[in-house]
This record gives sequence, C-alpha cells and structure tokens, in this order.
Amino acid sequence: MQYELYYWPGIQGRGEFIRLALEDAGADYVDVARLPEGSGGGTSVLLQMLEDPATGHPSFAPPFLKAGRRLIGQTANILLYLGPRLGLAPRDEASRLWAHQLQLTITDLVAEIHNSHHPIAGSLYYEDQREEARRYSAYLRRERLPKFLGYFERVLDENARGRQRFLVGSATSCADLSLFQVIAGLRYAFPRTQRKLEKSLPLCVDLHDRVAARPNIASYLASTRRIPFNNDGIFRRYPELDV
Amino acid sequence: MQYELYYWPGIQGRGEFIRLALEDAGADYVDVARLPEGSGGGTSVLLQMLEDPATGHPSFAPPFLKAGRRLIGQTANILLYLGPRLGLAPRDEASRLWAHQLQLTITDLVAEIHNSHHPIAGSLYYEDQREEARRYSAYLRRERLPKFLGYFERVLDENARGRQRFLVGSATSCADLSLFQVIAGLRYAFPRTQRKLEKSLPLCVDLHDRVAARPNIASYLASTRRIPFNNDGIFRRYPELDV
Repeated sequence: MQYELYYWPGIQGRGEFIRLALEDAGADYVDVARLPEGSGGGTSVLLQMLEDPATGHPSFAPPFLKAGRRLIGQTANILLYLGPRLGLAPRDEASRLWAHQLQLTITDLVAEIHNSHHPIAGSLYYEDQREEARRYSAYLRRERLPKFLGYFERVLDENARGRQRFLVGSATSCADLSLFQVIAGLRYAFPRTQRKLEKSLPLCVDLHDRVAARPNIASYLASTRRIPFNNDGIFRRYPELDV
Repeated sequence: MQYELYYWPGIQGRGEFIRLALEDAGADYVDVARLPEGSGGGTSVLLQMLEDPATGHPSFAPPFLKAGRRLIGQTANILLYLGPRLGLAPRDEASRLWAHQLQLTITDLVAEIHNSHHPIAGSLYYEDQREEARRYSAYLRRERLPKFLGYFERVLDENARGRQRFLVGSATSCADLSLFQVIAGLRYAFPRTQRKLEKSLPLCVDLHDRVAARPNIASYLASTRRIPFNNDGIFRRYPELDV
C-alpha cells in the first residue's frame, strides 16, 4: 500500500514529523500536494480534501494521511497509527502509551514555538504582531525552552541508566525522530539561544546527531525532498526574537 | 483497581476532562491532590510526583493518572487509555483513531482558549498581559471559535445522517464528554460570544444538553466534587475579552 501524505507543499511544518517517519522506514508514500497541479497536486487538493463532505473523518487542518481507505488526521495521531506499521513504536501497550505521551508533549512544545512568531493570530502577518512576538519570545527562551528541553534530557537520562540511547525502550521510535526535528528547527530559529541551552543538553544533542546519521534520514536530509527551513514554517529565523 | 488522578485541586482545568470520564463511568477513583494534606493530598503531592526520579514515566505537567503500577500523562493520552476500560471508546481501531483525532482537536482548541488570557506567558499574571489578551481574544471570538465549533458541528452533522447523535459511531465516547465541557466552559468565559455562536450550532448544543442529562454526569455536576468555574482555570470570565 502506498501512503498518501497531505500537507502544505512549501514548508516542513507539522507535516515534517510524518515525513521523517515515512522516510526513516523507507515507506512507499507520495507527498500529494507537492505533485504538480496537473498530476493532482498543489494546495488546492488539500483544501478540497478538507471541505469535501465525501471524505469521511474530515481533518480540522493538515497534515492528514490516506492509508488505503482510511483518512487520519492530527500529527501525533498519524504517528500513533504509523509507528507500529513502520517499526517505529515499542511493542507493549504501556510503552506505546509512554511514547505517545512524549509525542504529545512535543506537540505542545511545537505549538509554543509556533506562537513565538504568531502570539496574537495565525491570520495576521508576523509584522503585525512583532511587538507581542518579542515579548512572548523572551519568556519562551528563558522559561519554556529550558523547561521542555530539560524534561526530554531527563527522560533520556532515566532511560540511559538502562544504557539505552533512545527516549523509549531500546529502539528508535517516532518520538526520537520528532525530537531530532525540534532540535534542528530550534537551531535554525534560535541559534543564539540554542547554543547556550545545548551546553546542558548533551543527551538531546547526541540523540539529534544519531538520528541525523541514520542512513535513510541522512539521505533524506541531503535530498530535494527535504524542504529547507524557511520563514513560512513553524521554525522561523527572526534575529530580533533570538536576542 | 482504584484509579488515582493527580491534578491541581482548585480548578477544573485539563483535569476536568479526565474527571468527567471517570464520573460518567462510575469508576472507583480518588482525586489525590484534593485530599487533605494530612491524608497525602494537597498540591505538594503533585509537585513531588513531577520531580521524583523514582516515578518512572514522569509527566511534563498535570494531569496524570496512576492505574495500578502505571503512570500516564497528557490528557488525551489518559483518555486513550481509559476510554476502552470505561466503556467510552468505540471498539474498532479505525473508530478509536477517529475519536482520538477529535480529542486532539479539542486539545488544540483548549490551548487556544487558555491563551486568550495568557497570550504572552503562563508565568505572568493576566493583568500583566491584558492588552495582548484583548487583541488575541478578538481573533479567537471572530475566527477561531467559529472555525473550531463549526468543525465539530459538521462532524456531528455527518454522523447524524446515520441518525446518530454522537461525535463518533453510535455511543457516547470521551470526545462527547470533552465537547460538553468545552461548551460549558465557553458559556462561562464568553457568554456574549457564545450566545451568538450557538445560534448556528444546534447539534453541539443538543450534545451538550444530552451529556449534562446523563445520570452520572448530572449527579456529578450537582455535587461538591464539581469545582465551580473560576478565574484560575482555563475558562475565565473577563468581560473585557467578551465584547
């Protein structure tokens, strides 16, 4: 079965967490909206799928995944579905719930990072909420990023006592790939802040490096399938927010 | 087995979504932090559990649930665990994922509602971010609440064509209880806005009323176990945000 991913074609965004899982597993998938309009791609296909009453199980927003006759939305929910099928989830139920709990905590962190450039409204330009973004980002840098990343460092440390170098159990899961993406994104968006924070995050940095070196991930990151970070996505580089 | 819920004792907050599921099912549970300090309750027990390295699977924040030897965090994840055990989840995997997708969309909505009074930082008082809150709330009222609630209305409508009056399938699930809570909370926080919006949300209003009338929910809502809405929780009534 070929998976069909539906996500905005010009950004990594939340879709990237799905792309990384599919790429790491070498899964057969098509990134539908990145196809040419003439081949059924483009942004219009996303909007159609969101509005079409015939889809069943409509999503509130992209990303969503078509898997055979199923249509599944919400990033963490898609990974809950894909994880076991791609060999990227623990086997027992307790560990799967734990991995999903970490995935949802990453979801929360990603939402807070998104709000750094859009603290007032997603429908406004950044330039129209720059002052609020400046104020918000000061708290993000000082309080929230250290708290979230310190939490994941602690989780890695507790698992490392069993000599494991993964967030959950003894193998790579979707949560590891997602934490890699968050760290890569923060390095792009907040390079100055991240350089300081990473001094006390050796296990997160090590996890990032090992995920980046996984053969399928390395070849994905080097390919044109990996959309470069840019200032339309979740992780945006505005130097005035990284002081 | 007696479930142990860990959540802030003075507010409904995110813990309320768990309380509603446990109450509706008539489950045996204790709301630990609401016990007197001398009986192992109080806020200190929450903080201890968050910091104690011996807990395993530590949560980033309350609520979390102890179920036998398991400790489970993240509201939607706790409901993913509890749903099938409390008879509040569909039976087949596809419908469970769909119910969880809706639960995660409610999670997103709740976060946006929370940000109406804390758009800059959770560590600041409301009074220190009131101007930003005013600006944020205008977009919440005009754009986000209509979009989110309209989405749930549509989901109810599509399921209603199969003559069902639930979000998913043919029985009450955690998502129904959670949507009830969101509507009740919005009526408290944004009464003026909600009166207008509900004119085009007949199915959401009907769902709210039917959940409120479920015998275990009705008796819970009438009991002292239901903490009244107040201005320390997620849903806060600031008239200047509801203009």
